[in-house]
Amino acid sequence: MSVTAAKGFAAVGVRAGIRKRAKDLAVVRSTVPAVGAAMWTVNQVLAAPVVVSKQHLAVAEPQAIVINSGVANAATGERGELDALATAAEAGRLLDLFAEEVLVLSTGVIGTLLPLEKVVGGLRHAVPALSAEGGLDAAEAILTTDTRTKEAAVSLDGFTVGGMAKGSGMIHPKLATMLAVVTTDYPLEPGEAIGFLRPAVDRSFNSITVDGECSTNDAVCLLANGASGIERTPASDTAFAVALGRVCDELAEQIVADGEGATVLAEIEVTGAVDGPQARAIAARIATSPLVKTALFGHDANWGRVLAAAGSAPHNGGFAAVDASRVTLSYNGTMVLERGAPLLVEPDVSNGTCRIELELGLGSGAASYLTTDLSYDYVRINADYRT
Amino acid sequence: MSVTAAKGFAAVGVRAGIRKRAKDLAVVRSTVPAVGAAMWTVNQVLAAPVVVSKQHLAVAEPQAIVINSGVANAATGERGELDALATAAEAGRLLDLFAEEVLVLSTGVIGTLLPLEKVVGGLRHAVPALSAEGGLDAAEAILTTDTRTKEAAVSLDGFTVGGMAKGSGMIHPKLATMLAVVTTDYPLEPGEAIGFLRPAVDRSFNSITVDGECSTNDAVCLLANGASGIERTPASDTAFAVALGRVCDELAEQIVADGEGATVLAEIEVTGAVDGPQARAIAARIATSPLVKTALFGHDANWGRVLAAAGSAPHNGGFAAVDASRVTLSYNGTMVLERGAPLLVEPDVSNGTCRIELELGLGSGAASYLTTDLSYDYVRINADYRT
Repeated sequence: MSVTAAKGFAAVGVRAGIRKRAKDLAVVRSTVPAVGAAMWTVNQVLAAPVVVSKQHLAVAEPQAIVINSGVANAATGERGELDALATAAEAGRLLDLFAEEVLVLSTGVIGTLLPLEKVVGGLRHAVPALSAEGGLDAAEAILTTDTRTKEAAVSLDGFTVGGMAKGSGMIHPKLATMLAVVTTDYPLEPGEAIGFLRPAVDRSFNSITVDGECSTNDAVCLLANGASGIERTPASDTAFAVALGRVCDELAEQIVADGEGATVLAEIEVTGAVDGPQARAIAARIATSPLVKTALFGHDANWGRVLAAAGSAPHNGGFAAVDASRVTLSYNGTMVLERGAPLLVEPDVSNGTCRIELELGLGSGAASYLTTDLSYDYVRINADYRT
Repeated sequence: MSVTAAKGFAAVGVRAGIRKRAKDLAVVRSTVPAVGAAMWTVNQVLAAPVVVSKQHLAVAEPQAIVINSGVANAATGERGELDALATAAEAGRLLDLFAEEVLVLSTGVIGTLLPLEKVVGGLRHAVPALSAEGGLDAAEAILTTDTRTKEAAVSLDGFTVGGMAKGSGMIHPKLATMLAVVTTDYPLEPGEAIGFLRPAVDRSFNSITVDGECSTNDAVCLLANGASGIERTPASDTAFAVALGRVCDELAEQIVADGEGATVLAEIEVTGAVDGPQARAIAARIATSPLVKTALFGHDANWGRVLAAAGSAPHNGGFAAVDASRVTLSYNGTMVLERGAPLLVEPDVSNGTCRIELELGLGSGAASYLTTDLSYDYVRINADYRT
């Protein structure tokens, strides 16, 4: 169900021929008037669909989202923007919407032109097949190097939040992470959606990393159509924020667990930093360190690498503060370093999850990050990607 | 010859038993009074020998350098500093120097205590064996995951600059790169050495990367003893700067070429940035991108990944400016993107070197970076390192 778990949403996923042997075009729409919001990649190089969708969001409430996989339509110049516009316009015509009410998202290889005829042909097959049962097909159609679909849904107090996501490589904040579409039948007023979406995204999609890469295309979109018919109260708003957060968390975790070549899932918990942003900078540096990640792959509690990474976390043009003599570090609950003094123990990191806790002893700043190991398969997948 | 190429230097490398089956302790000394300088890692977590050597440099001119491999003596608390001090003191006693005239450097595993008895025993064997022919032994003794020694020497106008280095993983600016010892018989006054060393290091050791890691230990040390006996002139100072730069360049190139698991050597040239620091931020981001580096390993001119990396280069708390519509990009001289428009060509990247030129079209800032691919062997070496 996922992206169609909430009332009043329909979805579809079809094979348009953009990729070789898989579904590659998805459409999600609200069947009743909706409001929406999106958060976008912070990459300075924006894919054409991101440019076009941002323009559309600025002038209209989104009612439908078209997503293709296989081609990112990034670094495609003016032609790429025309292709993205044409996709939105054709989808609008088929869905009886203004082009500006359609968001377009793309994922895949950068620098290749979108095969517009295939996209248009796919849309003509897809739109008549839109249904409340189409969530899984849509979730399949947006995958690239993913090995499984990512879906989540939470129902609370008479409303539902559902969503789908894709992402396996190029997974990293700031946002710039993946594609996710979240739908809800909770009622929101125009302009309200972003206020709910931002905090949910910051603590989920913006706290995961697979390879530290920041893509040109990534986006999280929220559509809210009010079809649940429930009465809003301050308490229901809180419940909605909780449900939205849970869906985003679940999708984010699914993305990391399906990280390219991932064999180990690691949680990095940083506490005692000078402040929150420094904690976050340090957690991010550890979570992206090739030496930390290869040690995870080797099931080696090589904690010196964690310490070295912590000590070189870029922050505000310098480095986040670390005082080695105050640092306490543990792996899966076993302390290996206590206020700067190494304890001669070997923690058990033999299974597929690893929790690394770093207490800096400087203040109360805290942050956590989910990451994966760096494996042979990550190299294989990305050395082969275009072939 | 390397570190003993200049007159008045002796070196030695011995097996002290710190590592399993290799030389692991080197001593370099000037046989006549010398002056010196060093540049250190910028990691916030400093290894004990770095802390101690910085203190020594603040109070005395360095006359000798003791380097051990196998154990980094980092994250070893107060005990680690005492071990580093004891090493310098024992070396000073054997060499008839003040402890403060001895610099100590360590490289190897973080979080393991220095086996002081082995170091002291090794020093007692090493010091009597110091000789002008000991350069190669010293260069061998400082290696860790390196597959070959790194040495360079340049003679110009009656003086010589020679050096040795180690470094294979954890190779990345800022400095935080590796160990290098450069010696010269050019005459310098106390306090002058750093003014020559800094620019040479910035354009060499600070412009290479293997894995984006910043170690707790790394250092470049320069000793100058004037034993050439030449007369200094403004022209000779220029010649010295040139020779020093060349030795640093050669050592830095040898380090990248011996990067852990490296099969491809890549030069990233960024031009047309808003300014030099932005060019450098972009070049560094490309040079450390796992997706760019795995594509290099796959001999795939996947230039979209270069563009995506360029667009996400952290700079001054934000991102370095990139306007995709102005970007021109080429691989090995074949243009793949011209002012934002993709050209449908496949450049030849089949051999072991790759030159990636990115012209941003925004200004006159330029920077270049040497990097390697990310291969199966990088993962293997670092997943296995402690076993």
